Amino acid sequence: MHEEAPPPAVTRTLAQFVSGHPSQAWDAACDLAGHRTILNWLGCAIGAAEHPAVQAAVDAMAEFDPAPQATLFGRAERMDIGSAALVNGIASHVFDYDDTHPGNLVHPAGPVVAAALALAERFDCTGREVVDAVVLGVDVSCRIANLVYPAHYDRGWHITGSAGVLGAAAASARLLRLDAQRTAMALGLAASQPVGLREQFGTMAKPFHPGAAARAGLSAALLARHGFTASETAIEGRRGFAHVVSTQQNWAQALAGLGERFEIVSNTFKPYACGLVIHPCIDGCLSLRLQHGLQPADVAEVRLRVHPLVLELTGKQEPRTGLEGKFSVFHGCAAVLVFGRAAEAEFHEAIVQRPDVVALRRRIHATVDPSIAHEAAHVEIDCHDGRRLVQQVEHASGSLQRPMTDRALDDKFDALAVPVLGAARAAAVRRHCRALGAGDGELKALFVQAVPG
Amino acid sequence: MHEEAPPPAVTRTLAQFVSGHPSQAWDAACDLAGHRTILNWLGCAIGAAEHPAVQAAVDAMAEFDPAPQATLFGRAERMDIGSAALVNGIASHVFDYDDTHPGNLVHPAGPVVAAALALAERFDCTGREVVDAVVLGVDVSCRIANLVYPAHYDRGWHITGSAGVLGAAAASARLLRLDAQRTAMALGLAASQPVGLREQFGTMAKPFHPGAAARAGLSAALLARHGFTASETAIEGRRGFAHVVSTQQNWAQALAGLGERFEIVSNTFKPYACGLVIHPCIDGCLSLRLQHGLQPADVAEVRLRVHPLVLELTGKQEPRTGLEGKFSVFHGCAAVLVFGRAAEAEFHEAIVQRPDVVALRRRIHATVDPSIAHEAAHVEIDCHDGRRLVQQVEHASGSLQRPMTDRALDDKFDALAVPVLGAARAAAVRRHCRALGAGDGELKALFVQAVPG
Repeated sequence: MHEEAPPPAVTRTLAQFVSGHPSQAWDAACDLAGHRTILNWLGCAIGAAEHPAVQAAVDAMAEFDPAPQATLFGRAERMDIGSAALVNGIASHVFDYDDTHPGNLVHPAGPVVAAALALAERFDCTGREVVDAVVLGVDVSCRIANLVYPAHYDRGWHITGSAGVLGAAAASARLLRLDAQRTAMALGLAASQPVGLREQFGTMAKPFHPGAAARAGLSAALLARHGFTASETAIEGRRGFAHVVSTQQNWAQALAGLGERFEIVSNTFKPYACGLVIHPCIDGCLSLRLQHGLQPADVAEVRLRVHPLVLELTGKQEPRTGLEGKFSVFHGCAAVLVFGRAAEAEFHEAIVQRPDVVALRRRIHATVDPSIAHEAAHVEIDCHDGRRLVQQVEHASGSLQRPMTDRALDDKFDALAVPVLGAARAAAVRRHCRALGAGDGELKALFVQAVPG
Repeated sequence: MHEEAPPPAVTRTLAQFVSGHPSQAWDAACDLAGHRTILNWLGCAIGAAEHPAVQAAVDAMAEFDPAPQATLFGRAERMDIGSAALVNGIASHVFDYDDTHPGNLVHPAGPVVAAALALAERFDCTGREVVDAVVLGVDVSCRIANLVYPAHYDRGWHITGSAGVLGAAAASARLLRLDAQRTAMALGLAASQPVGLREQFGTMAKPFHPGAAARAGLSAALLARHGFTASETAIEGRRGFAHVVSTQQNWAQALAGLGERFEIVSNTFKPYACGLVIHPCIDGCLSLRLQHGLQPADVAEVRLRVHPLVLELTGKQEPRTGLEGKFSVFHGCAAVLVFGRAAEAEFHEAIVQRPDVVALRRRIHATVDPSIAHEAAHVEIDCHDGRRLVQQVEHASGSLQRPMTDRALDDKFDALAVPVLGAARAAAVRRHCRALGAGDGELKALFVQAVPG
């Protein structure tokens, strides 16, 4: 029997990192990733501001008579920072349109940005401090996720909330300028509150997870600020987070390259408002539409060759609701062929049921091809005029290999935010977000513009 | 390969039970257990009202500018019901002096009573409704615990918070009069938020667990009230609570005798403010002191024969702090021989370090005897006058076999509450608690009296 090496001091090391890493001590790509992460999150949160899940959460939190401390993005009400973090966190995930770290399936912004913006508004933090907190908070979320992924995820945890609560606590501790000791206490308290079961997918409880993680992480940091204690080995101890929530611990992953390599650089954004596995097929259809000026009436038949997961997760032939449409490769491809895009609006129930979309959807066929990688797809379109158009997609737009351009991200933001805020305010929010850290008043101005006028 | 039977519909069945079970449809012993559970919880919460952990939590929650909706027991401030549930839940567990279900090691009152009283104050519920909600909430907590115990506990979960959040949600749903469907949603949302790692024992995060579970369960019920949804199989589904937080599921235990047998009847209360495994030794010493009019100066030597766990968990020979005293069988026995009791005051740091107590402690010796059951102890005292006094304890006072009398529970309450509230208010709270359900105004009067005058 050989003795296992003791685990590294993850809690303390991450706490020192979060409290001590100098502001903006990373390269420009990392800082840009921070800004893109916040912008994408804001678009998703604002776009979903009136969703029934958000409305229900607002109504429930109103029972606490919350103080008007912080903005609910895209809404007129203000709430205390804990409730605001919850509501905004829910809103940002409700469309399944937010960011994804492809290495561990965390949607990192939800808990981290929701907590950071609520705290920053209350404590008059600068835009620079917010970007720093988001970069560091996402780093913590993703490193905690790497520590327990994939066993933790496979067991059934919704890793966005269960790892995300530690990232939210880290970002909050940073904004509150807690020292290393108190930051460790904040992480410890967060470690006791993993949120999220995958059993909830398809219900409002799924977007509840990043919201609840945001609130719990923010509260953990406030408790630590006032002297509340927790175990200094809450993450790595024998009865700590890593052992309790996972049968597998990748200790090296948690700390490798800490402060040199930042996980946020690997964050990706969805150009299409639906399940990620569908994206290569949509990408191929869009590409053929653009190259050949295809009109829906031109299309006789679409044949997709796809990775097995595509039909397992998104094989719904006859979706009826918006949510079902998001998990139907047939609807996703039909929508992009009809409208030239597959943003949130193209997954509304009325579109999913529209006769011309349904008719085109029924001319789309998919075959599983085990030789196709999960990030790839093969698309063939037969036209009524006899043309056969073929597109092979290796990596979809929005993947790590083909990131969304800044322009595309702006367009996505506008498509989400303009219907809620109007064009002028949406543009102002986008501009202030891009400028966070550049000037003094950008953050305050962002909050002013991010609600209906 | 045989097919496993599908698990029972735990979420839906418990929701129907909680929403539909008639008021007080149980025997008098069960109702009495409800009252005793609330009284014991109130004493613990009031007694710890000024503890540094409670103060830190109050300071942190004050950052939210909470509305003065609900009582903080033993304190002047009022807070919104979510913050009050958190703070009161923390206070009730901070002395490690609250209740215990011996079958699953849950401390049931913490999450359930903290949530129930905060909600009841805000929504003008009756005392009868509170007792009903506590009986039903504790039943849900303990049944969920039975479902996953002991694998879940052994893995490192602090089951008081991880199962307790479901009990808090159940009690809250009952008080809000949610129907079965919405109660199921509340339980579902709670299932996504298990709280508590055993790694935290010895820090403030331990009592944080029942407080955080109370707040999360209460919020879950409020969300469900306003139409928020969750999975209807959140507990039993393949990626639901029972599979995610435990490698073992005792499905039969979760629902056996539902509505006929109530878990709260098995709830026990501590007469001594220290680790449960020490109780038989303290009991034996107290018994000899009473029978023989022993004075500390009479005692030449004390010899204990104990179950192995006693020295493993509480073998500290030279405790220095109050908390260490609570986990020292030597201090517990010395204290009860000197003072005739071992309540919270006998574990203050000043007492643990008092020279006469230390001197007596050093004359106490313990030997492991594998033939002694874990709930038993053998105590021998040699006196300076040559007497040898012997006491065999099979079950300590406070155990299920020898429950604390109502009188002893009242005395425990007074010892905790009188220093905080004064004698008149403490007596009033005790009287109103015993009378909950008997008259209209008892609950309101209890809230008025449960704070310093």
